[in-house]
Amino acid sequence: MRIAFQHELSELSDALVEVGELVQVAITDATAAFRDTNIELAEDVLTLGARIDAKCNALDDTAIDILARQAPVASDLKLVVTALRISSSLERMGDLALHIANLARYRFPERAIPKGLKKVFTEMGALDVDIAGLLVQMLRDQHPALLTEIDELDDKIDALHVRVFEKVLSDSVKDSASVVDATLASRYHERFGDHAVQIAKRIIELIPAEEHAHQDH
Amino acid sequence: MRIAFQHELSELSDALVEVGELVQVAITDATAAFRDTNIELAEDVLTLGARIDAKCNALDDTAIDILARQAPVASDLKLVVTALRISSSLERMGDLALHIANLARYRFPERAIPKGLKKVFTEMGALDVDIAGLLVQMLRDQHPALLTEIDELDDKIDALHVRVFEKVLSDSVKDSASVVDATLASRYHERFGDHAVQIAKRIIELIPAEEHAHQDH
Repeated sequence: MRIAFQHELSELSDALVEVGELVQVAITDATAAFRDTNIELAEDVLTLGARIDAKCNALDDTAIDILARQAPVASDLKLVVTALRISSSLERMGDLALHIANLARYRFPERAIPKGLKKVFTEMGALDVDIAGLLVQMLRDQHPALLTEIDELDDKIDALHVRVFEKVLSDSVKDSASVVDATLASRYHERFGDHAVQIAKRIIELIPAEEHAHQDH
Repeated sequence: MRIAFQHELSELSDALVEVGELVQVAITDATAAFRDTNIELAEDVLTLGARIDAKCNALDDTAIDILARQAPVASDLKLVVTALRISSSLERMGDLALHIANLARYRFPERAIPKGLKKVFTEMGALDVDIAGLLVQMLRDQHPALLTEIDELDDKIDALHVRVFEKVLSDSVKDSASVVDATLASRYHERFGDHAVQIAKRIIELIPAEEHAHQDH
């Protein structure tokens, strides 16, 4: 019974890793679609978004089923509740990837990135992809040091978010449509990073204090 | 024991209503601060945001404590898990109110609403306040018909969100700073409505099917 239960908990963790991997593919495709105004890639993100939603729903059902049948307590309970919360953040990250991809779809065949902002959005996109990669690693290994790395990437994304506004408010971006696109795109990229940090912090809270201490050395 | 448990569950529901009421005050103050560039009101929203976060954290702790001690099943379990989810959405609605208030703080003493958009943002703000009011009512009474009303308000908010972009893309809004402000403000107002709909749907899922049928007539 106990072994079966532990097996169920580890299935839950595996499911989170799988969703994380899908989110990583979604943000990779979405940022490439946005950068290159690639409509096929943008449409792939639609399909990925639906798969992420379905997987999150299944994961939530599993978690609630575990709560009902196993009535976990202490750290096991914390794990199941955290899995529900992470699932909700991952689903939201999938939504944000979809929003970024949609900016490419709406503008097609015009280019999606406003003039003068290609470099900053390419960097921002690469950082979102990197942060998704670190997040998958963290979902898999729960290594506390990854939070620091994720936090650092998020700070860089925030700095680029500010830079987008500086560029937009300077004279380099002139038409209103481009300013709207840049503002929304930057906001989506920035929120994606925020969710990664939030998930990483939740993972850290699951790690017993003595392991933190151990890993510090 | 059973009575004590039911009492705990109803405390959880009461806590959600209380947070909902704080969110309602926050969005009322935030949209007024944004409309009138009222810095005092905007700062009140900062305080409210902190209270909302603290109340949500306490509510989450209570919910997890109930899961641990009472190991609820079936509809009781669903209620506790839904309370956790609603708490997270309400916290996010508080954040969005704060973002709207901050737009007033950043622009002060300049006016926060770009020229030509005062009417549309006043309407959007009033709709967000109304939707928060309906949401509090729904958290209190779980009346399914309120979902329809909330949905209708959300559709109106979405339509105004589109109208903001139309106005911005016409020649009425000229400077980039105003376009950025309008884009972000509109997005925050729109997301606020989305969360209300999401919460209302979660409440509906808690109502047994036979009650739906009953309420339809």
